[in-house]
Amino acid sequence: MKRGLFITIEGPDGSGKSTQSKLLVRYLCRKGWDVVHTREPGGTLFTEFLRKILLKPESRISPLTELLLYTASRAQHTIELIKPALQDNKIVVCERYTDATTAYQGYGRKLSLKLIKQLNNIATGGLKPDITLLLDIDVEKGLSKIKKGKRDRLEKEGLSFHRRLRRGYLSIAKKEHGRVKIVNTANTIMETHKNIVKIIDKFLSKDKRVNP
Amino acid sequence: MKRGLFITIEGPDGSGKSTQSKLLVRYLCRKGWDVVHTREPGGTLFTEFLRKILLKPESRISPLTELLLYTASRAQHTIELIKPALQDNKIVVCERYTDATTAYQGYGRKLSLKLIKQLNNIATGGLKPDITLLLDIDVEKGLSKIKKGKRDRLEKEGLSFHRRLRRGYLSIAKKEHGRVKIVNTANTIMETHKNIVKIIDKFLSKDKRVNP
Repeated sequence: MKRGLFITIEGPDGSGKSTQSKLLVRYLCRKGWDVVHTREPGGTLFTEFLRKILLKPESRISPLTELLLYTASRAQHTIELIKPALQDNKIVVCERYTDATTAYQGYGRKLSLKLIKQLNNIATGGLKPDITLLLDIDVEKGLSKIKKGKRDRLEKEGLSFHRRLRRGYLSIAKKEHGRVKIVNTANTIMETHKNIVKIIDKFLSKDKRVNP
Repeated sequence: MKRGLFITIEGPDGSGKSTQSKLLVRYLCRKGWDVVHTREPGGTLFTEFLRKILLKPESRISPLTELLLYTASRAQHTIELIKPALQDNKIVVCERYTDATTAYQGYGRKLSLKLIKQLNNIATGGLKPDITLLLDIDVEKGLSKIKKGKRDRLEKEGLSFHRRLRRGYLSIAKKEHGRVKIVNTANTIMETHKNIVKIIDKFLSKDKRVNP
């Protein structure tokens, strides 16, 4: 089956996922690819609505409920948007996907990694990103970029939570080094973008799929 | 551990779950029990909110998303309301629980029964009803009780969907005849109520737990 390319952008809060995704999408569009830019939780009308519930600081839900809502949101997003776009030979650039759940709910909230793997499989129907860019950042530095009054329910969690989830991300990257590429974000936005472009260009040149 | 009693009321649409639950709750209160009356999807502030999304006729979600949202709603309901009430030695009367998911999403929507069992276990943490009253009704008769303009997203499904889910309920009752008691609802409301009281009284008299 001829199919597109599924790129996910992951990283702790304040690591620049949105900014770098936009720059990457612009770059790929210029190269002639048909690109869909999306994010989790969200991406479709219904899941953007769920996103609001999930990120509201006043939503009082158990960690298990939170995990199941992310799973529901991912299932809808995958079925309604990601899979059809890939079948259409598009490049999908998605901010956060399954690794975010492993990092935030698994390492951060300390929920069972086995349960998360099981639910990620159910939600995605086995779909995996072709390549994942992990934007790594020092936790304090990342959080300092988000104004205190503007933090959502997860960003409001303590420092130790954010340290755990960063460790989680780095541990995923170690285990799945073929798919997950760590991107250092210590330098300027444009330098980080150039590093990302290098990684993606290398991947596309090796990849057997049809060029744009 | 001293704990209460968990009664669930199940049945196809229009079988009289709400009416019979109210009558049963009144009966148990009069006998001196401390009773919590609740329902699914719903029961808590957050899950009643999810209920609105789930039953809205205009919500366009995939069957898998629907199943995962019911699971999320059940997890929150179980953790926040049902388990604490049972630990408090109360009787919980709940309209619809895990069997509804097996009947509606499994038999009705034809989703994998194995997947549903897995998700039910995750949501309940292994909690099972002590006794389940299955209000059985002829499908056409049940639906005729709900005005066409007032039907929710699931009630709007076709006849064959409702026939499948009724068969699903009956098949659960056959497999788990120790827990699930079929209640014929062909007669008057008060006659059905009397049958329910007989079943519950018999169960309570045999049950070893502390009386009110």
